[in-house]
Amino acid sequence: MTAKIIDGKAFAADVRSQVAEHVERLKADHGITPGLAVVLVGEDPASEVYVSHKHKATVEVGMQSFEHKLPADTSEEDLFALIDKLNADPSVHGILCQFPVPDHLDERRTVARIDPAKDVDGLSVTNAGLLATGGEALVSCTPLGCLMLLRAEFESLSGKEAVVIGRSNLFGKPMGQLLLADNCTVTIAHSRTKDLAEVCRRADILVAAVGRAEMVRGDWVKPGATVIDVGISRVPHPEKPGKTKLIGDVNFEEAVEVAGAITPVPGGVGPMTIACLLANTITACCRANGLEAPKGLTA
Amino acid sequence: MTAKIIDGKAFAADVRSQVAEHVERLKADHGITPGLAVVLVGEDPASEVYVSHKHKATVEVGMQSFEHKLPADTSEEDLFALIDKLNADPSVHGILCQFPVPDHLDERRTVARIDPAKDVDGLSVTNAGLLATGGEALVSCTPLGCLMLLRAEFESLSGKEAVVIGRSNLFGKPMGQLLLADNCTVTIAHSRTKDLAEVCRRADILVAAVGRAEMVRGDWVKPGATVIDVGISRVPHPEKPGKTKLIGDVNFEEAVEVAGAITPVPGGVGPMTIACLLANTITACCRANGLEAPKGLTA
Repeated sequence: MTAKIIDGKAFAADVRSQVAEHVERLKADHGITPGLAVVLVGEDPASEVYVSHKHKATVEVGMQSFEHKLPADTSEEDLFALIDKLNADPSVHGILCQFPVPDHLDERRTVARIDPAKDVDGLSVTNAGLLATGGEALVSCTPLGCLMLLRAEFESLSGKEAVVIGRSNLFGKPMGQLLLADNCTVTIAHSRTKDLAEVCRRADILVAAVGRAEMVRGDWVKPGATVIDVGISRVPHPEKPGKTKLIGDVNFEEAVEVAGAITPVPGGVGPMTIACLLANTITACCRANGLEAPKGLTA
Repeated sequence: MTAKIIDGKAFAADVRSQVAEHVERLKADHGITPGLAVVLVGEDPASEVYVSHKHKATVEVGMQSFEHKLPADTSEEDLFALIDKLNADPSVHGILCQFPVPDHLDERRTVARIDPAKDVDGLSVTNAGLLATGGEALVSCTPLGCLMLLRAEFESLSGKEAVVIGRSNLFGKPMGQLLLADNCTVTIAHSRTKDLAEVCRRADILVAAVGRAEMVRGDWVKPGATVIDVGISRVPHPEKPGKTKLIGDVNFEEAVEVAGAITPVPGGVGPMTIACLLANTITACCRANGLEAPKGLTA
């Protein structure tokens, strides 16, 4: 058997076109242009690439993109003054600060400064609490993207055994909350889990987010299971000397023979993250304007 | 084999005496008397009993107890004015509003009004978010009590398979977070779980909180497992006509033959709840005064 390959790139493109339609409708029917502000402190090259991708994607769906690049030695006071301004600006519906920030700044404090209703990365304590208690949260983009992919694979997630490997605040814990809210039986496994292979073999839905290349072997996968691979590691290319390639947490060659469906790396979960950032901005914009958030773009 | 019976009553008495020692120390060394305010709206007889128990327990450990009884027709405005006053009062370190409140009041909004640093019931979105993200939360009393009982049973919880049945905001979800933070592999099961018996049989630690009398049968328990029974149902007494008795979510007679350790109902988890309310008040009081919260009384 060979698993269905879940095409995250195509799925993300579809989410983006849905977002673009909603932007169009918000402009036409309500005179509102959703706006996303991205704050970058310092000149980390990888961060600059991410920020420029986000900017491009934001503009492509018809939203306003506000880029704020601050020098690496920006004080917390100045960063917070900018965040306060963005919090107060009604044309800004989403705010994200690109991490990592320079060492003299604190990520937790920075996130806490962003209005939770504009925290489109879903990283704040308030949004974590809303997610944990069934409130109207903005949900961290990568787990939200995985949820969308999973919902598209199943008529219903209810009663499925889901195993999430990894318990980070950014991914594993919110992923678990989302699957639980969709009525999965949810297990969170991690580095201290005793027989990880055995735990994984229970899963109808296996989500791997540990950041260890190809850790999940084919015989960890229950036949027919849906496998979502959130890991991205860059390793030396096996065939092209001097080149690198991206691989996931799952040994794809092995797992594809066992799973029912699987996300590849790259082209699986990755493209969903920016798509969900745009989706969250639409959700935040609608809520800020007392409009119902579009279905299918949030948890 | 017959399981060890976990004596929650004795354990809770010990927690309370630890709390009393800390109160003594805070008074002697810092001139601080921890204070707990309890707000009761209306005249629900069960609530009045709970509130009077809490009052008595608070006074017994040497804390100040502030009781506020409001008429059933109290407006939200007046309730919030009282909460605001208690939030601002430095002699009040913990605030709880006894639920249920009358229908015209909203529990979620009421909890949200309480300063999270004084939310000793650990019910607020902020405290749920802090718990979910590894911050300094005040943790809901019953799951905190269960965690204390479990820590006392094991040298370490790390790597244990824990299954929590029930996913309420009040218990199941925070219990899962606490066990995860203590490095258990955590499964949350619930009404949609497909083969609940099978899921339970995996558990080294089985925590039942569904509110269905004796639902967990003996053959759901892995031999030697530790069973924590959070359920309390009042049923007609089998031998005394016209009388009732309290039973848990676990069929005790069956499970006691299989488990390694088990909490009885009553006298297991129940007494821990008020003890943990007092523990949370000490924790809140220490944090409010810039002092380190005592070890062993919080997560």
